[in-house]
Amino acid sequence: MLSARLSAKRIGSRAFSATTRAMRTEKDAFGDIEVADNKYWGAQTQRSLQNFKIGGARERMPEPIVHAFGVLKKAAATVNEELGVLDPKLADAIKQAATEVAEGKLVDHFPLVVFQTGSGTQSNMNANEVISNRAIEILGGTLGSKKPVHPNDHVNMSQSSNDTFPTVMHIAAVTEITNHLLPEMRALRDSLDKKAKEFADIIKIGRTHLQDATPLTLGQEFSGYVQQLTNGIARVEHSLESLRFLAQGGTAVGTGLNTKKGFAEKVASEVSKLTGLQFYTAPNKFEALAAHDAVVEASGALNTVAVSLYKIANDIRYLGSGPRCGYGELSLPENEPGSSIMPGKVNPTQNEAMTMVCTQVFGNHSCITFAGASGQFELNVFKPVMISNLLSSVRLLGDACYSFRVHCVDGIVANKDKIEKTLHESLMLVTALNPKIGYDNASKTAKNAHKKGLTLKQSALELGMLSEEEFDEWVRPEKMIGPKD
Amino acid sequence: MLSARLSAKRIGSRAFSATTRAMRTEKDAFGDIEVADNKYWGAQTQRSLQNFKIGGARERMPEPIVHAFGVLKKAAATVNEELGVLDPKLADAIKQAATEVAEGKLVDHFPLVVFQTGSGTQSNMNANEVISNRAIEILGGTLGSKKPVHPNDHVNMSQSSNDTFPTVMHIAAVTEITNHLLPEMRALRDSLDKKAKEFADIIKIGRTHLQDATPLTLGQEFSGYVQQLTNGIARVEHSLESLRFLAQGGTAVGTGLNTKKGFAEKVASEVSKLTGLQFYTAPNKFEALAAHDAVVEASGALNTVAVSLYKIANDIRYLGSGPRCGYGELSLPENEPGSSIMPGKVNPTQNEAMTMVCTQVFGNHSCITFAGASGQFELNVFKPVMISNLLSSVRLLGDACYSFRVHCVDGIVANKDKIEKTLHESLMLVTALNPKIGYDNASKTAKNAHKKGLTLKQSALELGMLSEEEFDEWVRPEKMIGPKD
Amino acid sequence: MLSARLSAKRIGSRAFSATTRAMRTEKDAFGDIEVADNKYWGAQTQRSLQNFKIGGARERMPEPIVHAFGVLKKAAATVNEELGVLDPKLADAIKQAATEVAEGKLVDHFPLVVFQTGSGTQSNMNANEVISNRAIEILGGTLGSKKPVHPNDHVNMSQSSNDTFPTVMHIAAVTEITNHLLPEMRALRDSLDKKAKEFADIIKIGRTHLQDATPLTLGQEFSGYVQQLTNGIARVEHSLESLRFLAQGGTAVGTGLNTKKGFAEKVASEVSKLTGLQFYTAPNKFEALAAHDAVVEASGALNTVAVSLYKIANDIRYLGSGPRCGYGELSLPENEPGSSIMPGKVNPTQNEAMTMVCTQVFGNHSCITFAGASGQFELNVFKPVMISNLLSSVRLLGDACYSFRVHCVDGIVANKDKIEKTLHESLMLVTALNPKIGYDNASKTAKNAHKKGLTLKQSALELGMLSEEEFDEWVRPEKMIGPKD
Amino acid sequence: MLSARLSAKRIGSRAFSATTRAMRTEKDAFGDIEVADNKYWGAQTQRSLQNFKIGGARERMPEPIVHAFGVLKKAAATVNEELGVLDPKLADAIKQAATEVAEGKLVDHFPLVVFQTGSGTQSNMNANEVISNRAIEILGGTLGSKKPVHPNDHVNMSQSSNDTFPTVMHIAAVTEITNHLLPEMRALRDSLDKKAKEFADIIKIGRTHLQDATPLTLGQEFSGYVQQLTNGIARVEHSLESLRFLAQGGTAVGTGLNTKKGFAEKVASEVSKLTGLQFYTAPNKFEALAAHDAVVEASGALNTVAVSLYKIANDIRYLGSGPRCGYGELSLPENEPGSSIMPGKVNPTQNEAMTMVCTQVFGNHSCITFAGASGQFELNVFKPVMISNLLSSVRLLGDACYSFRVHCVDGIVANKDKIEKTLHESLMLVTALNPKIGYDNASKTAKNAHKKGLTLKQSALELGMLSEEEFDEWVRPEKMIGPKD
Repeated sequence: MLSARLSAKRIGSRAFSATTRAMRTEKDAFGDIEVADNKYWGAQTQRSLQNFKIGGARERMPEPIVHAFGVLKKAAATVNEELGVLDPKLADAIKQAATEVAEGKLVDHFPLVVFQTGSGTQSNMNANEVISNRAIEILGGTLGSKKPVHPNDHVNMSQSSNDTFPTVMHIAAVTEITNHLLPEMRALRDSLDKKAKEFADIIKIGRTHLQDATPLTLGQEFSGYVQQLTNGIARVEHSLESLRFLAQGGTAVGTGLNTKKGFAEKVASEVSKLTGLQFYTAPNKFEALAAHDAVVEASGALNTVAVSLYKIANDIRYLGSGPRCGYGELSLPENEPGSSIMPGKVNPTQNEAMTMVCTQVFGNHSCITFAGASGQFELNVFKPVMISNLLSSVRLLGDACYSFRVHCVDGIVANKDKIEKTLHESLMLVTALNPKIGYDNASKTAKNAHKKGLTLKQSALELGMLSEEEFDEWVRPEKMIGPKD
Repeated sequence: MLSARLSAKRIGSRAFSATTRAMRTEKDAFGDIEVADNKYWGAQTQRSLQNFKIGGARERMPEPIVHAFGVLKKAAATVNEELGVLDPKLADAIKQAATEVAEGKLVDHFPLVVFQTGSGTQSNMNANEVISNRAIEILGGTLGSKKPVHPNDHVNMSQSSNDTFPTVMHIAAVTEITNHLLPEMRALRDSLDKKAKEFADIIKIGRTHLQDATPLTLGQEFSGYVQQLTNGIARVEHSLESLRFLAQGGTAVGTGLNTKKGFAEKVASEVSKLTGLQFYTAPNKFEALAAHDAVVEASGALNTVAVSLYKIANDIRYLGSGPRCGYGELSLPENEPGSSIMPGKVNPTQNEAMTMVCTQVFGNHSCITFAGASGQFELNVFKPVMISNLLSSVRLLGDACYSFRVHCVDGIVANKDKIEKTLHESLMLVTALNPKIGYDNASKTAKNAHKKGLTLKQSALELGMLSEEEFDEWVRPEKMIGPKD
Repeated sequence: MLSARLSAKRIGSRAFSATTRAMRTEKDAFGDIEVADNKYWGAQTQRSLQNFKIGGARERMPEPIVHAFGVLKKAAATVNEELGVLDPKLADAIKQAATEVAEGKLVDHFPLVVFQTGSGTQSNMNANEVISNRAIEILGGTLGSKKPVHPNDHVNMSQSSNDTFPTVMHIAAVTEITNHLLPEMRALRDSLDKKAKEFADIIKIGRTHLQDATPLTLGQEFSGYVQQLTNGIARVEHSLESLRFLAQGGTAVGTGLNTKKGFAEKVASEVSKLTGLQFYTAPNKFEALAAHDAVVEASGALNTVAVSLYKIANDIRYLGSGPRCGYGELSLPENEPGSSIMPGKVNPTQNEAMTMVCTQVFGNHSCITFAGASGQFELNVFKPVMISNLLSSVRLLGDACYSFRVHCVDGIVANKDKIEKTLHESLMLVTALNPKIGYDNASKTAKNAHKKGLTLKQSALELGMLSEEEFDEWVRPEKMIGPKD
Repeated sequence: MLSARLSAKRIGSRAFSATTRAMRTEKDAFGDIEVADNKYWGAQTQRSLQNFKIGGARERMPEPIVHAFGVLKKAAATVNEELGVLDPKLADAIKQAATEVAEGKLVDHFPLVVFQTGSGTQSNMNANEVISNRAIEILGGTLGSKKPVHPNDHVNMSQSSNDTFPTVMHIAAVTEITNHLLPEMRALRDSLDKKAKEFADIIKIGRTHLQDATPLTLGQEFSGYVQQLTNGIARVEHSLESLRFLAQGGTAVGTGLNTKKGFAEKVASEVSKLTGLQFYTAPNKFEALAAHDAVVEASGALNTVAVSLYKIANDIRYLGSGPRCGYGELSLPENEPGSSIMPGKVNPTQNEAMTMVCTQVFGNHSCITFAGASGQFELNVFKPVMISNLLSSVRLLGDACYSFRVHCVDGIVANKDKIEKTLHESLMLVTALNPKIGYDNASKTAKNAHKKGLTLKQSALELGMLSEEEFDEWVRPEKMIGPKD
């Protein structure tokens, strides 16, 4: 029976398999625990690994969080040294190790999954342990000895998971949105804008309720998409403002216990320096630990962007439907064979990937909303799932904007013949007659044409609504695409 | 059998029952139709009433939309007159009738439900018909004659449902948010802020992961709520900016066909004058008809506010849980008997109403998201359901802020004795010892106390961690509520 | 300035305006309170009215809940009398009053909104008070005296809001689903099935990814919709099974305190008798009070049905798009003028109403999910918002099935000429050649035709793939609509 | 500047980096393309890899889908051979290669992401290409030659992506639900049931609205959780029934073109044999391709289960809150240090992981709902995102049930002393007096005690409600936990 093997119990075996290897002993308040000797992590990381076998590799804490921990721990060490509470020698080693984390060099030492403690404490300790052991190594000490660099007393100095994790959430989100999502959104907007200009003079039938309506230019149609993206970029940029506030300095419950005055501000400033992005210390640390409204807000902005992109991608695939039995106004780039059974078929696959990404963003937003509302007292303990979903939305939207632009929008071609032909079959040009013969007579003209299969002109003449000359003067698509002087 | 009667088929009979009454004949392109003679509406409204028996009175188009139609139709008549396309005599009558609609005097003449055509055309025609007939009446004409004021040619002059309905969506949303929601949010924020100040000196146990943590003041705890609302107010205010752009002037597909240049700008200006609120003409009318991203964005802001309010209301009911077997730190106002079986029981009912409102807002937001993504080509045809859900969220949040403030927050009393007693039982004061004896020793002290049921001091002394004097000097809650100098 | 008037603060004034009228004094544990003398409700209803000014008339507790309270209170009085704890004279009066409530005669005496206490206690007390006062009236007593029929001691005897409200939730849901939704779903399924049969011999182009694909019959296409509804009916029917279990008998926390053994079972049986529908006593009352998973489950079934209906209504409007510039394979009934500016335009308005209803159901489901997860200890206190959203979904889906069937599906006509013409333009008939010339050669044939604008046959012959006779024999749409023998 | 490096453009470089390696040429209808020579995949897989750089490794098509493709391709080859259309020698090689895919041995050859074509065509071709090349290898041919085993003509024989992908969706879902989720749900239910029995005699205060209510046993409280899971198991089992229907045999649009009669039924039967699980051929293939209502339905069942688990995990963490300043009725297992700053702190981390998983499932369900509604004509093109989210929910819920059971529920200990002490402080025992002194007098007694800080008995005696003997006889918690005889 294949099925047994197919779904061999993954727990304990598949995702977290242990092979024979050299081990060392690490310890924490719960006692000793064995850790693979080729890993920098310590006791608390190891415990989490064993206690949270949920989701496997696919659910690892996102890499941007790991990088942000590197940035933060480096900033904290710098400030602690500056405030005179951390020995410069230790500070140097911590900073070196933290830089390696920030640069992604130690990502294999961050094995924990999203579905762990809701404060992200275990990932904070993962960072503390990796940096402490690496710093110990740099300083020639023994891994696991916590000497001379202790994960809690030195790497986590003046910090608590309760403020570090919200801080890395914000650092990671601002970084990814600024460096990945926004550039891709802008590039897609520009690409659509180029098409809008290219299509400025192509007059086509408009469609409202999916039914034939008055004409517009294909460029005007695309200009609507451009506007949606322009607005979307502004929405995402605005949502960054809330994310620029860092919780760091709140420590355990927001009071800042065990920090020195100024620590919060200095860390924010140091993080800004390290990332080249603007960050500020949060005006109220209680809010910054107990709620993640800024993440919900940002997700709301991404949700709106997904709404826009869904509409754009959906329109374009319908306009490109065919090649012979659909709307057929656009030709989309042909990137790959479309069917394993229908030879020669080509499909709007980029639009499909984009719209699937949008539905994923809607789902991520629902998750974030529920999780964001569920904070309790001094701490929201849905932090990892919130940031994991936000970063998923950021990554997917950015990647999809890139893919949709390069493999679809840039290559769209207007089928002018088909557009022209369709336009002149439409009955809705009758709308131009409203100011001339009134809505009710115009209505009769259109209905008569529809019923008898006539052209509009034939119908208007048959009903004696106007002369042929009047018709030809008044019903001109190129005069119907803007207000009158 | 009761059941048959209970749920007697409502279609056709219950929600839309017709009693004998005087009727008059109205007509449209589909022919004659009978309308109750005591109603101003015309043929298209009547057809919608008969064709969309969906949801009944509970699903009527929201009143703010009706009011906004009054404002818009008045503004349009003013501008049409000014541009010289509408006879001043007709304009005057239209303006008078439209004013009555704006003031809510004719609300009984707007019977249509949300689940009609997705463009809101039938509600636009409802407004055109009511205003036309009322204006005809003012001018001494015959109802239903369309003379001298025609619903399409005069009341709807230079307009299409495709631009009027998005316009009233925005007028109604901005009006309700500005005049109802924001004032109530600010009042609630101020009420919470007053409590934060009142409670500034009450030191209490903090709770993270629901577990005892380091102390903070009750005022600090409430200051987090204040910050959430301060941010929420800013979020809602910001979302207004997108809503201030009006689609009016786009007519059928966004081109502005059958308008004169300047119409769009003048209407926006006139609506601003009439409402005392700022509106602008939308920079791109194609976007303004085909997408309602501004509504999705605003709903995202309300969603974030609901996330905040859920957390606040939930915290407060837990802190008030008891009276004898719960956290018991707060006493909430007792407004009504709480149980039909448990005598003397009092419940946090305002918190329950608030949290239920929040879940409704989450649901409304999901609906708006889906509907917002589903626009097609030149028109989104989910307009009524989008604005109905947005106005529901606005109304419910505003009302709930009022009710929660007046019947709950304003009357919250801190149970100082209980708070004091609880604080001193906590083991987490040990955190103050980290910088003195290190994390590992502090941990041992706490675990020893927990295991043996000792106080922290007893445990610390038993383990020889420090002297009694040191303990008393270092472990002082009032020194644990902020950073050190 | 209109705006001020437009949105005159509704709180206290609009929704709950008090006009001068005769009042009487009612009282409860909180003391005396004035109630309008033409209303049967008492002190607790009045307090709720004053304390929960949230949402106004649009947010009233749904009528099916009021009816169900009538059924339940009648059943409880019957059983209490039978168990010998309620005086037969009082029982008779209670039963008479409760019958009036069940029949909807006293619905004006149930003014409370959904956003009240989360247990629905106030609506339970509303029922107790109305029935007690009406029974007092029947027995010749004084309204408000609680004699000889006390709202708590007699009408609520052996009951708690904690078990009555979940019970009426289930009674109302089962009643509405059985008597309204399911019949309308079945009627729509049958109407679609009739069309499927009518269209059985019309061969048309298939569309996958919106692109031309291999042919099928229009009847086959509609048979997919029929299958979706057949499955949907089964899903909704199945979800009824969980709703048939009643919480009654659990009283305050699920223990059944203050009931006699057998009360729970007897009430369920009595409710079955009164409604003609099957109900059972819940096997575990703790679950039945603290969770409403059955409501979440039922909402999940409705959500799936909405997914189906969205797809069906969306397909049909696209297939009917045109009249001249769209797919144009179907003609939908023309029910009303479609545009206030475009004369003669007709739109798929029933499809729009249906798809808007579907998005509302998706939103309702999100709300129910969140609310359903938020129960605490012995009670879920999101009961009113859960049942309000469920009944909304039931009502809207039932009404929309009716409207969509009568005003759309029943009148759909296939445009055979257009369908025939489109079919023969397609290149995807090439798929029939796979088994003859292989996928790669078939692919070349189609691509060659596409590139050069040839018919398939021309292309195949040009490439020398087969003879004309072979082509004519192999490429026959009527042979492509099923498996081979 | 770290930031630049932090988020170095991932597109093209990071997720899909190409290192120098031996390449071979593969080809498809679009021409030649280079593929790494150590991979079995072909041209279409390679194109997808290059055209869909969306999401990276985290978004790979889930492994159970890959395994299911192995099962399906093996079944199809078996049936094709049996029907006499596939050469037995080729069939044998295909079956051998497919078995390796089914067993997960070739998972590294399935690199495609979820966000590709919405039909999953590229993953179907990935399977066809890998199996064809592996079979060619087995038969001693040249990789990429398509001889003697062609990916389309032989491996995909009688199939289309349009029916294979829905088929593997169902195979994977049924397999994972049956072999992973359901066993873990049952184990958790049993673990809770064991606790319910262990706690059967511990009487505790009940809590409704979070406020003190009448007593129940801790076992009764847990029995509610058991009932939720019992129902949840039944819900998930029921949802399997829809998933057991396979689309296979519908080919391109549901007609079954290019299959022989009987193919559909035989494949379903063969898949049943291979997996040891029951599958049937879908009664209507048009529905099975164009809609995935069965997936939406199953997700609805998982959504309901998540609602239950959220409530259970949330209750348990509140009941365990403390250790000294919370409800403190339960002690949860201490698995790891809880804080990086607060020594000795232990947190309900398993409850946090579980509730985070639940919010993820809610989000997944939203995504699936939207995607499920968005099918068009003969095909739903949101297949990969739908199944990816469903399998995510299945995996996460299964894993979380395991983790929550083993690391939390199994080790829960009742704090009897605390429970006992709390119970006797409650005022709600007064409810037992309702039948003796009436609701109004009982209410006075409780309110008097609350106001003056008296015990219930003191208050009752002070008010002269009853004698001491009566009180002691009537107010006995152990008599309040069930109905009376």
